Amino acid sequence: MNYCSPCGSSKLQSELPIGDTHSRLVCVQCAHVHYNNPTIICGCIIEQDDKIALCLRAIEPQKNTWTIAAGYLEVGESTEIAAQREALEETGMEVEIQGLYSVFNVQHMHQVYIIYRAQFLRQTQKAGPESAAVAWFTEQTLPLNQLAYPTIKTMLVRHAKERKNGRFGLYQGDAGSGRVIGLHPN
Amino acid sequence: MNYCSPCGSSKLQSELPIGDTHSRLVCVQCAHVHYNNPTIICGCIIEQDDKIALCLRAIEPQKNTWTIAAGYLEVGESTEIAAQREALEETGMEVEIQGLYSVFNVQHMHQVYIIYRAQFLRQTQKAGPESAAVAWFTEQTLPLNQLAYPTIKTMLVRHAKERKNGRFGLYQGDAGSGRVIGLHPN
Repeated sequence: MNYCSPCGSSKLQSELPIGDTHSRLVCVQCAHVHYNNPTIICGCIIEQDDKIALCLRAIEPQKNTWTIAAGYLEVGESTEIAAQREALEETGMEVEIQGLYSVFNVQHMHQVYIIYRAQFLRQTQKAGPESAAVAWFTEQTLPLNQLAYPTIKTMLVRHAKERKNGRFGLYQGDAGSGRVIGLHPN
Repeated sequence: MNYCSPCGSSKLQSELPIGDTHSRLVCVQCAHVHYNNPTIICGCIIEQDDKIALCLRAIEPQKNTWTIAAGYLEVGESTEIAAQREALEETGMEVEIQGLYSVFNVQHMHQVYIIYRAQFLRQTQKAGPESAAVAWFTEQTLPLNQLAYPTIKTMLVRHAKERKNGRFGLYQGDAGSGRVIGLHPN
């Protein structure tokens, strides 16, 4: 951020706006306040029988590792619709959302992940260019040493265990500290 | 967005970047892609005995209506920490997070709300300037006709009912359609 997006001035300085609790980059010329907000990643664990579908990443970051279908929430769509869209784009599969499974924070990346469980419905197209491959894994065949992030591993191991008794919790994680909280609302 | 924030050029045009699925504002001069991301609002329903704490908004939007303590997630903090910080700023109360209660989409505002249940611990400071007043309400005294948004009303009415039997669901809502999904993971 070198220039003010509304007025084009290069006179930006960090200051605490009146009534605010955090310093912001403010334009000296037009007084526009530039906020720096975390982003939302929506995705889903796609289930069919005793398997889940994972994507082999064709792009950085974490190229050549396996992960769930997930990507940025776009303006105007809901988190559920975004999770379904990402499943279609990255696996070519149409899915039905079953429920929220995890909300976890990746503070150093300024991201919040909102992850659903989803039921595979049908393969409607080929996987997009972000996936080098898409494959189905059981609990026994999960590629534990080739997953994209530790938080994905923690989540998928828990998911596989819970699936055996058909009772799912809601997991809140914190990628910074490695902390994972399992919440069973009842 | 009139000027490119990295280079200052006014030559911005909407185009579909290679490999992308959505049009973005791209700088003709430096090729920087400007993403427009939804923001995250974190907050909590503060509980004590059979009451909850609400804030009377001192500022727009929805000045002079009651709502829960909530505000923008800042970069570097987790959603739980943000909910606790907003409680402290807007009510002066220190709270302990009990669990996730609602994830709801307000698509037309480009916002996702992540709302927790929280237990009141102690009053440590005065409420900040965003609150004209803070008060405790029972199910019977909830200001149903003076709440800030319909989604807040739906959530608080459900919360009050669930509280009587001590069993809480997880509510996913969609402010656009008015749709509310109650999920009981078990």
